[in-house]
Amino acid sequence: MGALYGGVDLGGTAIKAALCSKDGGVVVESHAPTEPERGPEAVVETMAALVCEAADGLGELHGVGVGCPGLVDRAAGVTRFLPNLPGHWRDVPVGGMLSERLGVPVFLLNDARLATLGELHFGWGRGRERATFLLLTLGTGVGGGVVIDGRIRLGPLGAAGELGHLSVDPLGARCTCGARGCLETVASGSAMVAEALRWMRAGQASGLEAAVAGELARLTPELIGSFARDGDPAALAVVRHAGEAIGLAASSLVLALHPDAIVLGGGVSAIGEPLLDSIRAELAARVSMFPIDDVAVVVSELGALGGALGGAALARCAGEL
Amino acid sequence: MGALYGGVDLGGTAIKAALCSKDGGVVVESHAPTEPERGPEAVVETMAALVCEAADGLGELHGVGVGCPGLVDRAAGVTRFLPNLPGHWRDVPVGGMLSERLGVPVFLLNDARLATLGELHFGWGRGRERATFLLLTLGTGVGGGVVIDGRIRLGPLGAAGELGHLSVDPLGARCTCGARGCLETVASGSAMVAEALRWMRAGQASGLEAAVAGELARLTPELIGSFARDGDPAALAVVRHAGEAIGLAASSLVLALHPDAIVLGGGVSAIGEPLLDSIRAELAARVSMFPIDDVAVVVSELGALGGALGGAALARCAGEL
Repeated sequence: MGALYGGVDLGGTAIKAALCSKDGGVVVESHAPTEPERGPEAVVETMAALVCEAADGLGELHGVGVGCPGLVDRAAGVTRFLPNLPGHWRDVPVGGMLSERLGVPVFLLNDARLATLGELHFGWGRGRERATFLLLTLGTGVGGGVVIDGRIRLGPLGAAGELGHLSVDPLGARCTCGARGCLETVASGSAMVAEALRWMRAGQASGLEAAVAGELARLTPELIGSFARDGDPAALAVVRHAGEAIGLAASSLVLALHPDAIVLGGGVSAIGEPLLDSIRAELAARVSMFPIDDVAVVVSELGALGGALGGAALARCAGEL
Repeated sequence: MGALYGGVDLGGTAIKAALCSKDGGVVVESHAPTEPERGPEAVVETMAALVCEAADGLGELHGVGVGCPGLVDRAAGVTRFLPNLPGHWRDVPVGGMLSERLGVPVFLLNDARLATLGELHFGWGRGRERATFLLLTLGTGVGGGVVIDGRIRLGPLGAAGELGHLSVDPLGARCTCGARGCLETVASGSAMVAEALRWMRAGQASGLEAAVAGELARLTPELIGSFARDGDPAALAVVRHAGEAIGLAASSLVLALHPDAIVLGGGVSAIGEPLLDSIRAELAARVSMFPIDDVAVVVSELGALGGALGGAALARCAGEL
């Protein structure tokens, strides 16, 4: 049986796992609810069970890469601050705990950087040597990662790539990070829902209002995207507002790095063309110094699996980035 | 006699030249007026004479790197658009013309990227392996360059690093590049002079007004810097306005890349501490996701010679970047 490498994407509601073979073929995927209220021990147990069950009978597990939603200490294998999990998982030795259960090396990374690694090895970067691209994960929050010449840029703390906190409105709304007007305050799924709500409350979004029918839980980025694709003016305005902010933020990095692509992941990216179009238009308005027709603006083809696949890639290269 | 490598920095008013030896020691520097009205042939002749005279009797010239103020086609050795020179030097084969006169290979690069290379080999990057830093050249305009892990990022057109055109005010003043609110419209020497003039016209800059005494040519970034260092409120406000814009623009790249340093070059950088302080304060306000005490904000120690030295470095590595 061949060598297998495991990847685990730890999210606030679900844990996703994937395995790949030595040559990078994807073997299997699985997932389970996180149940974070049961505490780190139980959550790590779920991670271990997911990977074990997936690998059972298929090959020998050689290592696992884990993506965590927040700050981690890569060298120590310890989480430092996962804001969306109870107790924020300060100083939880997830690497050691999981390694003990599985008997293989475990490598931690921020989840958006892990998704970037997934995109490099299994998505947009696959077969493109020395690719340079940005990944933006558009979900409840906005994460990111930067790949330059085929190598992910992590910086000394693994924190480089925090693209959700690029300033798009210096005097804008206060972000959870403490700064003002971060991209995340305009282009996250939650920011888009809030913007759509403003349109509804102003009586300017009759289509969305009818669809929601008083149940605000129905007002999701998916619903807004669906209405935008059908040409609903309010939904289109909400999507364009987010797209323009993404284009403005990305323009700085396009000018600085002239990347091959800007890849969008996360649930919000499923909105597709209306979002991509407004990003492209804003980029074109902001970058006049050189032609950027060669900069692709695309949706990741990895769907929700980018992070877990990135974990397998991280394990396959034994944590060497 | 040993091998020598020449660097030439072509500016709108002056041409600067430098030579370095094979081991990177700086041998000699010289300069001459550009006299651009005499046309490309005469200007290239001046470049050749500067390098020849400098090398005479010291060693054998093996190559020359030339920095041009605008867009160049590196592979063809041809200038594409130098906005500050008469006729914009469209499609002038400077590489071939200079190579013919000197009998050695000649390599072209944008002048700010050349200064970045100078900073990497002779300035802040010297002795720092795998340095990651930004260079901002603050002069009449604002240029830039990005070094990642000890390698300059040029992108497919050599245009990556156009940091003067990062957006700092999406609805701001129209820039020469066509976009709105570029960093250059706020933080260039000319923008600072215009801002100081607004303070004078509003009757709010009595100190500067007395020093200028009706001769507006005396109102320079150097004068503003000198007054700012002495605590003049109007001059300090002008410097802070520029520094905040630089900090805001740089914050995007700090979040994306977590560099080791932001290095300031160009005449305006001589303002020193009041400018550095406001950049640091704005960076601290904008980057909350990870600690950035380790990101140095410093003035280049190469003065006006960064570009010419970068040219020598470019020639020494035979144009391989």
